[in-house]
Amino acid sequence: MSATDGVLVACCQLAPRIGEPDFNRGLAHAAVLDAAQRGAQVVVLPELVNSGYVFKGPDEARGLAEPLDGETVGDWAALARELELVIVGGVCELDGDTGALRNTAVVVDPGGLRAAYRKAHLWDRESHVFEAGDRSPAVIDTLHGRIAVVVCYDLEFPEWMRLPALADAELVCAPVNWPREAKPPGERPQEVVRVQASASVNRMFIAVADRVGRERGVDWVGASVIVDPAGYPLAGPAGDEETVTVLARCRLAEAREKRISEHNHVIADRRPELYGPVAGRS
Amino acid sequence: MSATDGVLVACCQLAPRIGEPDFNRGLAHAAVLDAAQRGAQVVVLPELVNSGYVFKGPDEARGLAEPLDGETVGDWAALARELELVIVGGVCELDGDTGALRNTAVVVDPGGLRAAYRKAHLWDRESHVFEAGDRSPAVIDTLHGRIAVVVCYDLEFPEWMRLPALADAELVCAPVNWPREAKPPGERPQEVVRVQASASVNRMFIAVADRVGRERGVDWVGASVIVDPAGYPLAGPAGDEETVTVLARCRLAEAREKRISEHNHVIADRRPELYGPVAGRS
Repeated sequence: MSATDGVLVACCQLAPRIGEPDFNRGLAHAAVLDAAQRGAQVVVLPELVNSGYVFKGPDEARGLAEPLDGETVGDWAALARELELVIVGGVCELDGDTGALRNTAVVVDPGGLRAAYRKAHLWDRESHVFEAGDRSPAVIDTLHGRIAVVVCYDLEFPEWMRLPALADAELVCAPVNWPREAKPPGERPQEVVRVQASASVNRMFIAVADRVGRERGVDWVGASVIVDPAGYPLAGPAGDEETVTVLARCRLAEAREKRISEHNHVIADRRPELYGPVAGRS
Repeated sequence: MSATDGVLVACCQLAPRIGEPDFNRGLAHAAVLDAAQRGAQVVVLPELVNSGYVFKGPDEARGLAEPLDGETVGDWAALARELELVIVGGVCELDGDTGALRNTAVVVDPGGLRAAYRKAHLWDRESHVFEAGDRSPAVIDTLHGRIAVVVCYDLEFPEWMRLPALADAELVCAPVNWPREAKPPGERPQEVVRVQASASVNRMFIAVADRVGRERGVDWVGASVIVDPAGYPLAGPAGDEETVTVLARCRLAEAREKRISEHNHVIADRRPELYGPVAGRS
């Protein structure tokens, strides 16, 4: 494969189990190995894949949290080195500096841990458990492209999705846990619609790995998907119950082209001087 | 019908003809009358419906432009007064103050001309013809709800779509002329996907009226659509060749509810202090 063929991206839709960290580590490990055997160069794992999601409360989460030099991230770093790939995955993190719990997504590559991004927009009862991050989406040059990372509910804030585009990200990787909600028959889940729109208005690739597996009464959208800079799915959305790896080859250079007509460019056409209130100015 | 049944919104997908202003005025007039007979209370007409779109150059556009107190807006004001409705439609405007040409959408209601919004993000060769607006989307209290207006390419800037939401708009009306582009089979046009996403992240209704009718080699997406605050179509998207009125009853009060879980609110959950670069701060 030549570089011009693009980067093979894999989103592993898994079914972790709350309170079974060894099981979950094994699940993620096996998924990365399998994806690598299929040629994947970037592997995206779900949000909080080491711990599960539906915590009874902060104490349970604390008991499942790991530091960034813990077993889960350590295993991913070893896999990334051995297999020469990039892994973006969600971990329930015990912040070594402050003791806070964080809903974190790490980027590891053959050089080790490259970034730890803490989810900035918390969903529902997460605010009882986690401390929100206050730094922009990480954007990292890796051996397989310029990769950004956000987590789940972050995807619903177009202002947030603009930031990696302004930082020249080619591919945004998003570990998610999307709780399933009602939708009209025949409609694509709105979670996917929003990802499509963010990809197209920013002309970048977005790869989403969701979880499945009913947990304490919660079902999930599934719908793991890889979307191109035109906003259309290259692979997925996956079903809402299947454990599956969604794979697509992404010609990341396409995300460098922001022109969409002879006279239009999705970034240069912005008029930020008029957007003041969006960033809190009135 | 009681107020709790909602407001009946109509998007009239029409086929204006370049250079035939009398024909176009008649077309819009008949469409408004027809929509009113079907009970419509808010009627949305396409972008530049008085003039057509594919100008040979600025001179042709200038020959077709009208001031805001011209025949087209005058007719709409008379219709709005007579039929007790709100009309939002696109006009090729000759700016009486500066002599500039503007790609404008007006809001008229029984009180007359309530707002003239000038398109702020110009598409392709429009920049050779029109002067871009530099004011936020108009947001107007009307007898049929709090209504905002944007025009076509404006829809592709999520920062712009956030502004009416921050100003408590319930319904955003969007006159458009969407040139048709290739898309994968079975996919909804990306133009519609972006509208759906803007509706859902802001929890507001969006009503889009596109044109049809090949003009100087350009075809159009059609796909006029009315989307609810969950981001799903209530009516449409229409086909890409049909002249049709898309109608849906919108319970506009639903757009006042921004909570989406026990602990989440799409506006309050924003973290504008972190979005600085989006509005041009770094």
